[in-house]
Amino acid sequence: MTDEATAFVPGHVTGFFSAHPHEDPARAGSRGAGIALSHGVRVTVRRADDGTEADSETTLNGESVAMPPVGGVRERLGVPGAAVDAETPLPLGSGFGVSGAMALGTAYAANAVFDRRLSENALVAAAHCAEVEAGTGLGDVVGQARGGLPIRLEPGAPDHGAMDGVPARPRVEYLAFGEVSTEEVLSGDTAALTRAGERALADLRERPTPDRLVALSRRFAREAELTTDRVESVVANVRAAGGDAAMAMLGDTAFAFGTALSDAGYDPVVCDVHRAGSGLVSE
Amino acid sequence: MTDEATAFVPGHVTGFFSAHPHEDPARAGSRGAGIALSHGVRVTVRRADDGTEADSETTLNGESVAMPPVGGVRERLGVPGAAVDAETPLPLGSGFGVSGAMALGTAYAANAVFDRRLSENALVAAAHCAEVEAGTGLGDVVGQARGGLPIRLEPGAPDHGAMDGVPARPRVEYLAFGEVSTEEVLSGDTAALTRAGERALADLRERPTPDRLVALSRRFAREAELTTDRVESVVANVRAAGGDAAMAMLGDTAFAFGTALSDAGYDPVVCDVHRAGSGLVSE
Repeated sequence: MTDEATAFVPGHVTGFFSAHPHEDPARAGSRGAGIALSHGVRVTVRRADDGTEADSETTLNGESVAMPPVGGVRERLGVPGAAVDAETPLPLGSGFGVSGAMALGTAYAANAVFDRRLSENALVAAAHCAEVEAGTGLGDVVGQARGGLPIRLEPGAPDHGAMDGVPARPRVEYLAFGEVSTEEVLSGDTAALTRAGERALADLRERPTPDRLVALSRRFAREAELTTDRVESVVANVRAAGGDAAMAMLGDTAFAFGTALSDAGYDPVVCDVHRAGSGLVSE
Repeated sequence: MTDEATAFVPGHVTGFFSAHPHEDPARAGSRGAGIALSHGVRVTVRRADDGTEADSETTLNGESVAMPPVGGVRERLGVPGAAVDAETPLPLGSGFGVSGAMALGTAYAANAVFDRRLSENALVAAAHCAEVEAGTGLGDVVGQARGGLPIRLEPGAPDHGAMDGVPARPRVEYLAFGEVSTEEVLSGDTAALTRAGERALADLRERPTPDRLVALSRRFAREAELTTDRVESVVANVRAAGGDAAMAMLGDTAFAFGTALSDAGYDPVVCDVHRAGSGLVSE
């Protein structure tokens, strides 16, 4: 038992995906592939002063925020009095999995503070289900739990889903221009998106390399008609410079490996692939 | 394609286990729980000069060694000309999973050098099967691939097994006195061992904490009649000092969390839980 605990959860960029809704949130999710980033979210949980829900605020970079997946984790763990403070350099709503990271970080840290004695799979399941129920994501949480370049073979929380990974840890570059509404895309007709995502997954499994991950992500965004004008323009310039880039699902964000964005004259944010997945950093 | 690549694989101490043989090595393995250590094995693979098997040596800390699981990985990946050089501070045969680490590190690094384009699951499966066939281990490889405090829920390589984890990252202390033959124990009657291991697993799942992992490991070694005299004496002294310790499966090695060995007057080796699991560090 401890008064306060902090967890780190990597950001997660999805390159391509297929949506698999299910009435049981532990079986709902996505197939697809992405990148766990060394840029992530530090989530600190402490007991609210009077231990009641009324007092259990959620903040992001010092500002109070409404974050339904965090509320869902509080509920699933039975810790209404968990005050949650998150810090991140990543923009919200831009395809970096910040909501999933806040949910998963809350689960890890609240488990320590409130001595819930849950296993890693149970914590990941709580965050995944809270995120699915809030409609803010379908696959970030399981990718963030694994780290690396996660491939989601089967949708769902750990007891139902299945993961693999691309065995490489390249340098990552990204440019974040703004938001795309995950809720809007996921609540629309996802049939074409899912066909394109399934095809990309089959092709990545045949040859799981970073270059292929970017190329298939670029193809997916085009086939699913999700590419924004700004990302389209970045991709065209990067390809003209001999590199490759793709769009983060779902945000107005371009990403690439190595120096592809820099080589095309951009001034991207640079980070690494996060190796470790999520976990406590102090308790 | 690259001339040389290096992977890091954490050491892995098993605290308790049950043995599950199967004619298909991908389905054979163990249930149980353990610790991935920040002390591990760096494995460098390069193309042997003339690209033939005759030239593809395996060394450990500069000395030529016979290491059948490494040979098994070469065969499964179709890379007879992979020269393997491993460096580790961990003793061989003492319950730290050095053979599994060499097999898994060879798989990761050879995949990069020889452009085999395999996924992480395929690399883990190759190393797991090679280790099972060599009789040198049943569960280290999948624990080393995951990192943290891995729980093996179901035996086997990633397509067949299932993993969970204890969500904590405590400081680790250990004292390595010498070798215990894994082959000898695994080739004997494992019925009593497996009953004790299954019971420990059920109890850990009910309350997956580091303290419980040590207590259940201590009980397991006693029930399976594997505790050595030296470890027995360390455990007694640590418990007299108010702490707890257990034995590494399979080695004449005592381990504990926090400062339990130091507090009892020992001068243990100290390391951390390895968070990241295995992977390339350079290519």
